[in-house]
Amino acid sequence: MLVVGLGLLLTFLPRYGLSAIAHNFLLFNFSTQWALVLQGLLHHFHHGQVHLDLHNLLTAEFAAVTVLISVGAILGRTSPCQLLVVATCEVPVYLATELAIVTHLGVLDVGGTITIHIFSCYFGLGVSKALFGAAQRPVHPKETPTHRSDLLSLVGTLILWVFWPSFVAVLCQPGDAQHRAILNTLLAMSASAVTTMVASSLLERDGKLSPGHLQNGSLAGGVAIGVVADMAMPPVAALALGSLSAVACVLGFRFLTPLLARKLAIQDQCGIHNLHGLPGILGAVASTMVILLASKDTSRQALCQTAGLAVAIGSSLLAGLLTSAALRLPCLAQPPEQLCFDDSLYFKIQDQTESPGPGSTAKEEALALKDQV
Amino acid sequence: MLVVGLGLLLTFLPRYGLSAIAHNFLLFNFSTQWALVLQGLLHHFHHGQVHLDLHNLLTAEFAAVTVLISVGAILGRTSPCQLLVVATCEVPVYLATELAIVTHLGVLDVGGTITIHIFSCYFGLGVSKALFGAAQRPVHPKETPTHRSDLLSLVGTLILWVFWPSFVAVLCQPGDAQHRAILNTLLAMSASAVTTMVASSLLERDGKLSPGHLQNGSLAGGVAIGVVADMAMPPVAALALGSLSAVACVLGFRFLTPLLARKLAIQDQCGIHNLHGLPGILGAVASTMVILLASKDTSRQALCQTAGLAVAIGSSLLAGLLTSAALRLPCLAQPPEQLCFDDSLYFKIQDQTESPGPGSTAKEEALALKDQV
Amino acid sequence: MLVVGLGLLLTFLPRYGLSAIAHNFLLFNFSTQWALVLQGLLHHFHHGQVHLDLHNLLTAEFAAVTVLISVGAILGRTSPCQLLVVATCEVPVYLATELAIVTHLGVLDVGGTITIHIFSCYFGLGVSKALFGAAQRPVHPKETPTHRSDLLSLVGTLILWVFWPSFVAVLCQPGDAQHRAILNTLLAMSASAVTTMVASSLLERDGKLSPGHLQNGSLAGGVAIGVVADMAMPPVAALALGSLSAVACVLGFRFLTPLLARKLAIQDQCGIHNLHGLPGILGAVASTMVILLASKDTSRQALCQTAGLAVAIGSSLLAGLLTSAALRLPCLAQPPEQLCFDDSLYFKIQDQTESPGPGSTAKEEALALKDQV
Repeated sequence: MLVVGLGLLLTFLPRYGLSAIAHNFLLFNFSTQWALVLQGLLHHFHHGQVHLDLHNLLTAEFAAVTVLISVGAILGRTSPCQLLVVATCEVPVYLATELAIVTHLGVLDVGGTITIHIFSCYFGLGVSKALFGAAQRPVHPKETPTHRSDLLSLVGTLILWVFWPSFVAVLCQPGDAQHRAILNTLLAMSASAVTTMVASSLLERDGKLSPGHLQNGSLAGGVAIGVVADMAMPPVAALALGSLSAVACVLGFRFLTPLLARKLAIQDQCGIHNLHGLPGILGAVASTMVILLASKDTSRQALCQTAGLAVAIGSSLLAGLLTSAALRLPCLAQPPEQLCFDDSLYFKIQDQTESPGPGSTAKEEALALKDQV
Repeated sequence: MLVVGLGLLLTFLPRYGLSAIAHNFLLFNFSTQWALVLQGLLHHFHHGQVHLDLHNLLTAEFAAVTVLISVGAILGRTSPCQLLVVATCEVPVYLATELAIVTHLGVLDVGGTITIHIFSCYFGLGVSKALFGAAQRPVHPKETPTHRSDLLSLVGTLILWVFWPSFVAVLCQPGDAQHRAILNTLLAMSASAVTTMVASSLLERDGKLSPGHLQNGSLAGGVAIGVVADMAMPPVAALALGSLSAVACVLGFRFLTPLLARKLAIQDQCGIHNLHGLPGILGAVASTMVILLASKDTSRQALCQTAGLAVAIGSSLLAGLLTSAALRLPCLAQPPEQLCFDDSLYFKIQDQTESPGPGSTAKEEALALKDQV
Repeated sequence: MLVVGLGLLLTFLPRYGLSAIAHNFLLFNFSTQWALVLQGLLHHFHHGQVHLDLHNLLTAEFAAVTVLISVGAILGRTSPCQLLVVATCEVPVYLATELAIVTHLGVLDVGGTITIHIFSCYFGLGVSKALFGAAQRPVHPKETPTHRSDLLSLVGTLILWVFWPSFVAVLCQPGDAQHRAILNTLLAMSASAVTTMVASSLLERDGKLSPGHLQNGSLAGGVAIGVVADMAMPPVAALALGSLSAVACVLGFRFLTPLLARKLAIQDQCGIHNLHGLPGILGAVASTMVILLASKDTSRQALCQTAGLAVAIGSSLLAGLLTSAALRLPCLAQPPEQLCFDDSLYFKIQDQTESPGPGSTAKEEALALKDQV
């Protein structure tokens, strides 16, 4: 279901919907298979045989989700070949980091907040910085979402929102912990949905909502709660964490993304730093606090959580910067600027000459007509 | 999944899709939290502690669904603040009525036909009557669905249709009763889908189908069957109930809604009376008959069902009329008539000046151009 | 969920989306009920009573899926009455063939590759040949998909892709076999998604993808794997079968469908031969090989698989040709050529005069205006 939801969420670029879904789908499948192969080799190396079951497949799919989140930062300006290279480089680093954080450091992270969301976010930002960071880019004319693309994207958000609790709880121990994880996730996401609406209308002029805020802010609670979902905590704490992360996400969109683009020349096409980075860090900090408050002798575990956060950010940024070196190879066919964000570069769309698509073409004709008149 | 389905179903207003989904989503989350708080307080009052589990959450979500159905009657002509006031007033009345009907009267209503559908329908009609009932309104130019919005809305119908059986059976006792509930619901909904098509093409000129009939009629069987789903009855009875309710729904759209608007000045934007009111009453009557036919000494239970129906209609109408008094407060910013049914009142839609959205804007430009010529 | 996915998949005709979904929905319900009645009668005949449970319903829904696949070949050129006649004729033949293949021949076919996909494909081709085979048809102007309809259709593909493993595994024995069926299906579909992308961009000029290939090829692996899903086989075999069937599907679209239309005058509107026929045959051949390789004394079972394939193709082609005789009855109101592929023939679309739909109408106005100028 993640494929459908994420695919739809990414359709917010009006003329890039087909490519967004198709590239997403390709990356998802390629990364899953690549992760399965790597896991199999690792297991073979340790135990002398390749083992494959549904649990394997699930962790391979988590690796694929990591890739999908990362490429959100460079969506629309990259070719499918470049995306495949990103996947090839990111999956082994992800598996290694996950092994280091969860198995060696013993970090508690049931929903993958640190291992998936924070890792993928800073990996994507690293790639984006090294690939596009030379100069600031003006806003591309085809980048602005339309009413229709916002609508489809909002449907994608809702689908993700509905399936998020199962995504968080799927690797929990069945029983009380799983029960608790679902409940906490539902509360946090419910709070973040309400808070996003309020925060977004307070921030914009005339109290109008921005569809982009709504699409991302509603999910921020789910990112943040992942790391603490199965811990015992009062419902109010889950609600507060959800609200806080929604506020962080909306503020990030309003102030931080333009600031990053202006000062550091970091392009973040889908705002993954606001949806995955900020709420993820909030969640990691919250997990430290929950552990410290839980009982006496837990300062070591709290230290581990912080170390895990640091490892995730460090390794992902480094790996992202290194990966982008491979992406600059000319054989990967990065699309020229004026052809970015356009499906017609990758798809044989049959209606461009015979029967014009809705809207834009009609408008162009009207404009052409205007010139004639 | 209800959120996705209901949201999509409400996108039939062509320029109001974003607001419909977003307001729906906001109301769903707000009402769920509000119902959880109220349930917690009630439980605290009785047992001295607040208890929270997935069953709680489920009943809170049913309260939220009640609110979503009710606001269908006033969709598009109200501001989000007004909708929140409706939710604030409706949730406690719903919880009280549900307690009275199910716990005190002992009404059998596994799918919530009486407690959810009938209650929410007459609550919504009460609010609509008191709020807009002063004068008849002409058809708003942005009210007419387009081909595209009908398509999205039909997808929403299908999603609801697919998940309806689980919605009816989720609170059943596992085992035979749940099995029976799923089976009966599937049969009733299948019958109502076929009947809707036939009835709609017989009613319209040229035998054409009306998309609105299809969107609502297909679900009518699910509303009606809710109250009898877990009772033992022959499959033919489930099929007949589904067909009957679909016919009632289509006839309601064709004749009753215009009649109500003309005679009683009741606006019913989404036709909730046809989808929830009429089939709900049919289902309640059917439940009385099934109980009477079941064995000898059941006349008391049959009386209870009728009493439950009366309580639901009475309390909801009264509460709806009272609620609308609060809605008239000027601080709630009811939108002026010419700005109704328009997303741009609530959303920062970025393409209105730079890159025009599909269709309507292009057309307006063409018209503007025509004027110039 | 099949209803949603298949319905969306069929929306690729830009002005025919409503009809495609609605007719699909009608056929699904009608066929399910018809199959339930036939099953009930058969059971009554044998055991003297009608029995109904969820397993019954599931097999009835498989019969309905068979009908939906078949009508893909004649989509858009037929009236709902004709489609109902197809369903009436196909369901009993399907039930009889399934009984013959699975019960009498003992063919192993857990995912219905032979009994559902191959049967429905050749039934549909038979109907199409006999109904439209007299003359070659030029490409209809409303037949070409647009960007928007391709997008919706791709979403339908993704939904089907996500739910396909459950569709294959639902009738498996719970436990190891079911586990294996899910795993093999996931692997095959993942491979076919990646292969489709590569194959499609190699085949088209400029390396562009064709959306139609993507919509169908990604599912081809699921069709092929159905017949062997629960057998023990190395993961590499599942991946290879998925890739092979995707290549067959893409090549079929590129070369075989035009060839069939030119030489044999067979219209195949949705390309069901490429999605269901070719991968199905591949799967059947693969099942023979898997069985032969499994252990020594299995040549009889391998023979059965081949016989099952032959029975499915023979009976379906024959029945399809016979059915089309009934379809030519004038009372069934086959639509005239110029009104094909148009929703306005079957739906009361209210915006055609007052508020024009997006795109095409605006464009027509612009054109009309051009003429005036």
